[in-house]
Amino acid sequence: MKIELAESYGFCFGVKRAIEIAEKNKNSSTYGALIHNSKEIARLEKDFKVGLTDDHKSFKAGETAVVRTHGIPKNELKELKDNEVNVVDATCPYVRKPQKICQKMSEEGYDIIIFGDEAHPEIKGVKSYAQYGARVVTSADELKDMKFKERIALVAQTTRRVEDYMEIANYLIPRHKEVRVFNTICNATFENQEAVRKISSQADIMIIIGGKNSSNTKQLFSISNDDCQDSYHIEDENDIDYAWFKDKNFCGISAGASTPDWIIQNVINAIQENVK
Amino acid sequence: MKIELAESYGFCFGVKRAIEIAEKNKNSSTYGALIHNSKEIARLEKDFKVGLTDDHKSFKAGETAVVRTHGIPKNELKELKDNEVNVVDATCPYVRKPQKICQKMSEEGYDIIIFGDEAHPEIKGVKSYAQYGARVVTSADELKDMKFKERIALVAQTTRRVEDYMEIANYLIPRHKEVRVFNTICNATFENQEAVRKISSQADIMIIIGGKNSSNTKQLFSISNDDCQDSYHIEDENDIDYAWFKDKNFCGISAGASTPDWIIQNVINAIQENVK
Repeated sequence: MKIELAESYGFCFGVKRAIEIAEKNKNSSTYGALIHNSKEIARLEKDFKVGLTDDHKSFKAGETAVVRTHGIPKNELKELKDNEVNVVDATCPYVRKPQKICQKMSEEGYDIIIFGDEAHPEIKGVKSYAQYGARVVTSADELKDMKFKERIALVAQTTRRVEDYMEIANYLIPRHKEVRVFNTICNATFENQEAVRKISSQADIMIIIGGKNSSNTKQLFSISNDDCQDSYHIEDENDIDYAWFKDKNFCGISAGASTPDWIIQNVINAIQENVK
Repeated sequence: MKIELAESYGFCFGVKRAIEIAEKNKNSSTYGALIHNSKEIARLEKDFKVGLTDDHKSFKAGETAVVRTHGIPKNELKELKDNEVNVVDATCPYVRKPQKICQKMSEEGYDIIIFGDEAHPEIKGVKSYAQYGARVVTSADELKDMKFKERIALVAQTTRRVEDYMEIANYLIPRHKEVRVFNTICNATFENQEAVRKISSQADIMIIIGGKNSSNTKQLFSISNDDCQDSYHIEDENDIDYAWFKDKNFCGISAGASTPDWIIQNVINAIQENVK
């Protein structure tokens, strides 16, 4: 079995930065999962005593709250600070951008449309900065029954596919006087997606490693699946079914932005040991 | 021969307005062709003594200069006023918009890209409002060797095809942090184009009437020609070759925004008289 990693994969700048911040804040808690990878979160707890708290109200004055890479809603950040919690912000700088854009565009009177998953923590945070609200959509179809002002600001979840984003822009631009399109999809996402596009067209089996609720991993899987129908999204080596590899010769591997190298290496080792 | 006019065709708001302004200013001169239709310009000269001057410097203090629908460069407007020429502005309000956008976006530090014909009077005027310059392109291909800042403002000549405009937007958006897309293609252009799209798919011969240097007429012809290969761009009934109508049953007709109704009627009369 030939095993090859995509040219770009795994940990992005924002995730690396967040983990470094967490490691420097022993005996703290992250508010919400720091990154979408439960194995890495367990490692931080074990090795650095960095816990996980799901309710921002449970932080007490003087305690340290590490804000997750995906960011948190504006009012919750304010409440933490008002309650004199020591806030350490590990929000990815590339997520801060759409937050700031929503705030500014809202102040300037634009109708704001966010392309992303309304239930995802990043989007809950980003949307909260649009003081007069924002519409969150996952496809151009959802726009068809909506009415907007003539001036629209469009932002995207950092981990989305640019092709899908363009479908939304293409629907809006001919129908409105001004569409201000902010390309908030992050470069790491672009690069990982481009690399998956390349390797999946050559491989006959693709393994995409990342948290099941990781948005960017799901996008990588979707791109991979376009070209290679034997694509599998796994969290770690325990999810592998070795029957997948029957009659396959070339296994391509990629991993989401929150997948640590040690998990990727475990997967490669497991395939090498169990598949001829 | 069945002859049918497109649902929307001919004179737009801006052209009607410009002609009314010219008719109210007898014994004046337009600076540049008021609209792109030499027959209508000849009528204004004959019936209203509205002449045509090609050099703004030749206007003397106290004389009346009617500014063409396409607008003129900012510095020429200033010179006319500085020289105490009585300036009557017949610039289409829909052309004033991209002029104002270029001025504002330039002040705000955006790189400005204009989709249009650099040699067209409208674009010469619009571009002049970008105080730090603007790039004028007719296709996305031309952008490939150009470098831009991260923030781009995109405007279009009012008479362009929206599909072509979207190609440029689709090239720029994934490559830049912010693309502010102003939909400056005017509604009359949209409506006339949409109506040509509809009728040309049914007709077996299409006659598009308008000045040979009229941008919007050329776009109508191009759309018509996509669906009906027997499409002809004529200025008036004298350009018709009746051999075109051999074995045809359904003739669709449209006309550019600067084509007066009397020319359209002459064309219909001529076809009815000369084709069985």
